[in-house]
Amino acid sequence: MAQLGGHAAFIESKSTQISHGDTEKEIGDILGRYFDGIAIRHCDYGIGNRYLNLVAEAARAPILNMQCDVYHPHQCLADLMTIWEKKGRNLRGKKIVVSWAYAASYAKPMSVPQSLILQMPRFGLDVTLAHPPEFELMPDIMEQAREQARKYKTGFEVVDSMEEGFKDADIVYAKSWGPLVTTSDPDEIKKVTQKYESWITDERKMALAKEDSIYMHPLPADRNIEVTDGVIDGPHSVVFDEAENRLHAQKAVMALTMS
Amino acid sequence: MAQLGGHAAFIESKSTQISHGDTEKEIGDILGRYFDGIAIRHCDYGIGNRYLNLVAEAARAPILNMQCDVYHPHQCLADLMTIWEKKGRNLRGKKIVVSWAYAASYAKPMSVPQSLILQMPRFGLDVTLAHPPEFELMPDIMEQAREQARKYKTGFEVVDSMEEGFKDADIVYAKSWGPLVTTSDPDEIKKVTQKYESWITDERKMALAKEDSIYMHPLPADRNIEVTDGVIDGPHSVVFDEAENRLHAQKAVMALTMS
Amino acid sequence: MAQLGGHAAFIESKSTQISHGDTEKEIGDILGRYFDGIAIRHCDYGIGNRYLNLVAEAARAPILNMQCDVYHPHQCLADLMTIWEKKGRNLRGKKIVVSWAYAASYAKPMSVPQSLILQMPRFGLDVTLAHPPEFELMPDIMEQAREQARKYKTGFEVVDSMEEGFKDADIVYAKSWGPLVTTSDPDEIKKVTQKYESWITDERKMALAKEDSIYMHPLPADRNIEVTDGVIDGPHSVVFDEAENRLHAQKAVMALTMS
Repeated sequence: MAQLGGHAAFIESKSTQISHGDTEKEIGDILGRYFDGIAIRHCDYGIGNRYLNLVAEAARAPILNMQCDVYHPHQCLADLMTIWEKKGRNLRGKKIVVSWAYAASYAKPMSVPQSLILQMPRFGLDVTLAHPPEFELMPDIMEQAREQARKYKTGFEVVDSMEEGFKDADIVYAKSWGPLVTTSDPDEIKKVTQKYESWITDERKMALAKEDSIYMHPLPADRNIEVTDGVIDGPHSVVFDEAENRLHAQKAVMALTMS
Repeated sequence: MAQLGGHAAFIESKSTQISHGDTEKEIGDILGRYFDGIAIRHCDYGIGNRYLNLVAEAARAPILNMQCDVYHPHQCLADLMTIWEKKGRNLRGKKIVVSWAYAASYAKPMSVPQSLILQMPRFGLDVTLAHPPEFELMPDIMEQAREQARKYKTGFEVVDSMEEGFKDADIVYAKSWGPLVTTSDPDEIKKVTQKYESWITDERKMALAKEDSIYMHPLPADRNIEVTDGVIDGPHSVVFDEAENRLHAQKAVMALTMS
Repeated sequence: MAQLGGHAAFIESKSTQISHGDTEKEIGDILGRYFDGIAIRHCDYGIGNRYLNLVAEAARAPILNMQCDVYHPHQCLADLMTIWEKKGRNLRGKKIVVSWAYAASYAKPMSVPQSLILQMPRFGLDVTLAHPPEFELMPDIMEQAREQARKYKTGFEVVDSMEEGFKDADIVYAKSWGPLVTTSDPDEIKKVTQKYESWITDERKMALAKEDSIYMHPLPADRNIEVTDGVIDGPHSVVFDEAENRLHAQKAVMALTMS
């Protein structure tokens, strides 16, 4: 925001009027009067996206989704920008694998893979989604993604093997997410997740992808758990350019929506 | 501040030199050298106002009171601005009821009602203060408020019934505060407060006020405890304009004091 | 930063990607792309300085050390500026005592005394370091400081008495630090520290220094534990000018490194 000549104020939910009881309606109506845009991150499963939409209904300023439980649009734009930079604008016939990966830290949102499978067909990519059975994405998102693939005549398949997913991929996008559609019980989440420690992105699996494949991750990654240092710091990795593009993509959206 | 072309830095007391031991004198003297103004919120009963005054004594920059245990001047200015917008500049003969309301969340400061009863006589309003016996305001503030009313020849009365307070009011300002003059014991506060669950602003009570009365609240309110959704979202409510005016009033004070 | 016409964003380690697992390499590489400079404070003993260097290796933007476990360069520049203001540019033959002082609050870093003994010889000051035996500074810093004193032909001595250190000093710089070279055990730290409650800077000890001596402290001080009110608020104290100079010194470094 500062680079665009504007000013951003950060509002931490725990130490402000939000924790004192301001509702979505009040946040939207009041902050929509104070500011020219409201950017919100709210990833709680089943709550975040609903919260954003209630704020948006009450606000006269645009609401920017900085990640919710369902979508991560700005990350997805940064990803697309990175793919264009590395693979060119004509992506038809190229394959992206959106793969689950093991992580020990916490049950991460599904917003990144869901945004990827929804948006990439529009830009011509064949999508392969790879995950263990317990890590399904939200059913209506899956339906929309299939519909997008049909509309744009791109490939869309789901496999339950990281190796099968990586095979001949031009773009490897492997990150962890929680089994949130399957269970909300913390113990169960842990138990289910631990079964798939082998789902790490390593050199052996990367060798199954195309020789000039790129490895993507929105960061931060659980190093040597989700992905080996060899891959994330290796020749296929584009994670730092991808992280930089987050800045450019987000600035572009702010410039287009807040002027 | 940003809208005025300036820059504000936020200093959180818990994670800064304040928690490392900087005294009021040090905060005032040092921050008064770094900044052109210092805005402080400190609502702890018996401490906040004293803290602000000690910082002000040591500072070469103006101190702005963002709410203390005794006063809430910027809220009061925003309230006055809202009253002028809705009821015109000539307020003589019009009645404002400043009423206690029940809230379950926590013992809120008395700074809003105290600022209102002190300032509104200057602008011609007749003041009725309504609260249960245990929720008296600070005795010297009451004395000053009575003196103000005498000076400006406006009405000033205290009643112990919400209904009586609301009767024929042009402006209804009903919010919760703690029984802080009566007790500082948390259990006692809870016990005393719970006796008055009926002190909610609802449609029935609003009907006692004038037909064109306005309902005011500094937000956030405890919805359906302190006030019903029907009132706060209803035709008498001006709470969102009141919240917006907080921005304008505060900018005006900064522009006048920090230039 | 704002006074230089720039913009600073504050990143709190506990509530950001750092706590989600971003490594030094990732922080350096990514934030080095987003920002024109990265200022870091990281005082954990044995970790902080290493962290800063790892971030610096990965970053294309300059890293500013806002205090680590080893150095506090910007404080030291503010101290030098204050000494020049009060004692003139020609400091040869003048004596600074860098003394340990008792504090009850917590085991503070050694970065301030270490930076002082390393830098002050370059500007001609004779250095006396005073501390109880358990409060030695890091051995390699001591070696470098002695080497600096040899190079600039200035005095350098270590004493274990506050009184001896203060004797005939032109500049008294007395502050607490933890016995971190001796022990990392919290109970042991407490026990060792409590032995030296008499190491308070008071009027009696200040009387041992030169009549026109100045008393310095980077603030906040533990009042009446580390230093008496009489000294810190007294005629020798320059602590508020010293605190103000922190602003000017830091702006100068930013202007020189980030343009």
